[in-house]
Amino acid sequence: MPPDLSTLHGGSLLLAWQLKDKHVLIVGGGDVASGRIESVLVADARITLIAPRACLHPLTQYFVDNSDRITYHDRLFAGPQDLEGVDMVLTAIDDVETSRHICALCRERRIPVNVADIPPSCDFYFGSQIRSGPLQVMISTNGRSPKLANIIRRRIEECIPEHAGEAIEKVGELRTKLKERAPGVGGEVGRRRMRWMVDVCSSWDMEELALLDDKMMKRLLDEGWEKNQVPKLEDVGGKTRKSTAGRPLEEQAGPLLPTALGFIAGAACTALILLFKQRS
Amino acid sequence: MPPDLSTLHGGSLLLAWQLKDKHVLIVGGGDVASGRIESVLVADARITLIAPRACLHPLTQYFVDNSDRITYHDRLFAGPQDLEGVDMVLTAIDDVETSRHICALCRERRIPVNVADIPPSCDFYFGSQIRSGPLQVMISTNGRSPKLANIIRRRIEECIPEHAGEAIEKVGELRTKLKERAPGVGGEVGRRRMRWMVDVCSSWDMEELALLDDKMMKRLLDEGWEKNQVPKLEDVGGKTRKSTAGRPLEEQAGPLLPTALGFIAGAACTALILLFKQRS
Repeated sequence: MPPDLSTLHGGSLLLAWQLKDKHVLIVGGGDVASGRIESVLVADARITLIAPRACLHPLTQYFVDNSDRITYHDRLFAGPQDLEGVDMVLTAIDDVETSRHICALCRERRIPVNVADIPPSCDFYFGSQIRSGPLQVMISTNGRSPKLANIIRRRIEECIPEHAGEAIEKVGELRTKLKERAPGVGGEVGRRRMRWMVDVCSSWDMEELALLDDKMMKRLLDEGWEKNQVPKLEDVGGKTRKSTAGRPLEEQAGPLLPTALGFIAGAACTALILLFKQRS
Repeated sequence: MPPDLSTLHGGSLLLAWQLKDKHVLIVGGGDVASGRIESVLVADARITLIAPRACLHPLTQYFVDNSDRITYHDRLFAGPQDLEGVDMVLTAIDDVETSRHICALCRERRIPVNVADIPPSCDFYFGSQIRSGPLQVMISTNGRSPKLANIIRRRIEECIPEHAGEAIEKVGELRTKLKERAPGVGGEVGRRRMRWMVDVCSSWDMEELALLDDKMMKRLLDEGWEKNQVPKLEDVGGKTRKSTAGRPLEEQAGPLLPTALGFIAGAACTALILLFKQRS
């Protein structure tokens, strides 16, 4: 069924922006800036940070001291020359006038810009985020409630499968090996590759995918891809760990355990009562 | 504790890109393009779609026929003139050469571009998405496994609180009213506003926030913000619905219910056994 067009509005376009080897300018050094620095480092960018040393949040100071991908300038924003060769600008300062000025300079130069706390000066917003290896999740309330975004983030965090990050890593490697074995962009081979990868991901569970090693991937491609089928983990030399260790007992047994414990307690109490009654 | 710098790499910068009244060019009309159109419409953009009519996916055709925000051209990409006044370009065509050409033209003009299926020609990737009113969630595996992203999306979908979308909508309205009552960007008033909103969101649950109406918001501001406190839902004229209908019984009672049922069953069985034994 096609979507109801009247519901398609009021949102943002959620994106995973690529910053590998790009140059990001961050103006400001407070706690908001420290969060920005972390997000940008995750995306493999180089950072130029402009902020008087007195304004540096301890975490910002830690990044400046320990990351070789940050060039730090102990001063205020100086003007258009600070934007040369810059691919993205993030400001997090209290000075509204300077913020708006930086935004205008960026817009002239078509440099994507985010000015903390001034939505009209933002080409994009940040959301609340979760990261586990190559898995990243963003929760956006489209600027309406950062706090609710955080509450929802915590709930989501709890329900992401335990081995999701590892599974994604391994499936990524398998996909790269498959592309080497059956190269080509798009067309029939691209579609066949996609179908087979979907079949593998649908037939194996996260925990099994996370167990894949080089040897097992080779067997999976030899005996699976080549014969257009999906072998089981055991067929390619793997052994499921299916460990439930670490999870609370209740969760492992569902309602069975409390029912059983209740039954035993009920039986014991009644037996004791009746036995005492009999003796007296 | 500061984050381990050696783990901060290999990801993307997840963003909520703002497209209100911006102009997005989509080249291609297949099923990938139809998904792009939907995402872009959600973000309130105008779309120019370039694709021969014979290549239109039924959903693309539906959007072209029914949305007044799409300008459709029944032809192939014609050259740089198609990029005039465009703020973002998304291509989803099988022609790799044309795709790369469009990407090069966009890079020269600093227009953000995504070329489906050719990662090096993408300034950004799309992830798997969830939307519920103003709430948007994106799951990215950083290009490693779209299928696992989908599986994780379904799990996350199940654990988003039922009234999250409505709650976010209402909190957004409350925040706007608060900004009208206590205006100013940043500084002490900004911080106080933020603290109070955080307190409201932390003390009320999603279901209660979703119940807020104009009258209740006014009372919440009068009796809460003005007196620097957070009244309860009942104090501002609300009545919690606290419906647990629809949820399985077990979930409502936690392990208490099965334990109690087990206790009663155990007691009854033992009583019966002992009574029969006594009689015989």
